[in-house]
Amino acid sequence: MTHSLQPVHLVGAGPGDPELLTLKALRVIRAATVILVDDLVGEGVLASALDGVAPHPRIVHVGKRGGCASTPQEFIEKLMVREALAGERVVRLKGGDPLVFGRAGEEIAALHAAGLEVVVVNGITSALGAAASLGIGWTDRRVDAQGVLLVTGHTRHDCDGQDWDAIGRVAASGVTLVVYMGITQIRSIVEALRRHLPAGLAVAVVQHATTERERTLRATLGGLVDLVASHGIGSPAVPIIGRVTEAARVAARSGDLAVDGGRMISR
Amino acid sequence: MTHSLQPVHLVGAGPGDPELLTLKALRVIRAATVILVDDLVGEGVLASALDGVAPHPRIVHVGKRGGCASTPQEFIEKLMVREALAGERVVRLKGGDPLVFGRAGEEIAALHAAGLEVVVVNGITSALGAAASLGIGWTDRRVDAQGVLLVTGHTRHDCDGQDWDAIGRVAASGVTLVVYMGITQIRSIVEALRRHLPAGLAVAVVQHATTERERTLRATLGGLVDLVASHGIGSPAVPIIGRVTEAARVAARSGDLAVDGGRMISR
Repeated sequence: MTHSLQPVHLVGAGPGDPELLTLKALRVIRAATVILVDDLVGEGVLASALDGVAPHPRIVHVGKRGGCASTPQEFIEKLMVREALAGERVVRLKGGDPLVFGRAGEEIAALHAAGLEVVVVNGITSALGAAASLGIGWTDRRVDAQGVLLVTGHTRHDCDGQDWDAIGRVAASGVTLVVYMGITQIRSIVEALRRHLPAGLAVAVVQHATTERERTLRATLGGLVDLVASHGIGSPAVPIIGRVTEAARVAARSGDLAVDGGRMISR
Repeated sequence: MTHSLQPVHLVGAGPGDPELLTLKALRVIRAATVILVDDLVGEGVLASALDGVAPHPRIVHVGKRGGCASTPQEFIEKLMVREALAGERVVRLKGGDPLVFGRAGEEIAALHAAGLEVVVVNGITSALGAAASLGIGWTDRRVDAQGVLLVTGHTRHDCDGQDWDAIGRVAASGVTLVVYMGITQIRSIVEALRRHLPAGLAVAVVQHATTERERTLRATLGGLVDLVASHGIGSPAVPIIGRVTEAARVAARSGDLAVDGGRMISR
């Protein structure tokens, strides 16, 4: 039987806009018989990708939003293995890119352990879609932003375990800082970063990047916590912290919110 | 006239595989009348995207490979502005994503200064394509890789100006380190990083990621310089440095080279 098994595809759905799917992801999704879909996959992505496909593959909704509660990771891995061993063409569809805070390493290991082949199909990671909406580079040599650091705001060990001191130091050297899944811990994160970064450092926050519900907030590091709270910005939202955000003209898609240093900009 | 001008599209071509283009990039490329193409755009990407398009847009090859010599950035910006002001539908096509070491910030500023609108269309950044080929996550909580730091190996100021000490410190905290455009300066980069990182730390290097010419090298930080030299790995190649690369099974596409700690693996 083994020789007839199909590789399992770990596929990135991108940040939310169905058009930001890659051609390869589209092909693989349309050829699938079972699709395990993460909660963070944009609402329109799968519907758009499967338009005209008959019969539809079986869709299984797995995964769950941020927070530190244990996710049923083991269950998802067992389900993938079982379906693939049963001969299904399995796609595991994740928001953004599977390799960026997407637990791809764990899932690849579980699939390999079961003797299955794995193909990773990249997606546009959410914070890159956010930067495109804002019209800002992750890097920009004009402001000596010679790199970008992507970190997660919540980690395996009790929402802690990230070396915020080292992160603050590298950001102080000019590197842009992007915090995934950090909006619920934004107060303690900002507090830690303020040891190395000035209160006036520019920050842009994008919620639901590249979708119809996109909201954009511009602030300074010192004012970030209050602005996020007063505007009810919740997960999924990505703060982009650094000088790259200073020059950027806000070009949010939905245009319902644009705040610059506490001053609401009418749009 | 101004009201009839089209926005200029800064478009990411992805790492090289034509199938890693996004649907949006494909649409925009096929609607263009002038395309300014960077050298790092994969050979097959444009041909594949324009398949069946008639008449073909005018293709202008601009940009040039790494190194620190001054690039004709000003010329490119003037050309984009001139073509857009003449009513052309201009696409600026770049390897990877325009927002990641792609000078998008500068080009957006120049276009805005000329009164032009800009739309950024994301692409898969090259090192993410490389990680997909290797089957490794940029992040992996199993090895406490709670983030990823992308830096450039050459900077504006005489191939220097990067704070390698701060970079080494954050990598020592477990964060994965990805060095763009660093292969020609790999000796001095490794020297600086060795102050904070052990010689035995795993590294994977991918050249021409996701293309037919893809080559993959696995090494340790201590052995990296000699391996890169002895195997003639040149630009464009991306070292991925960190514990995430340890567990990965090398699954290079072309399979011409796979070295693990100095031992060649026959494939």
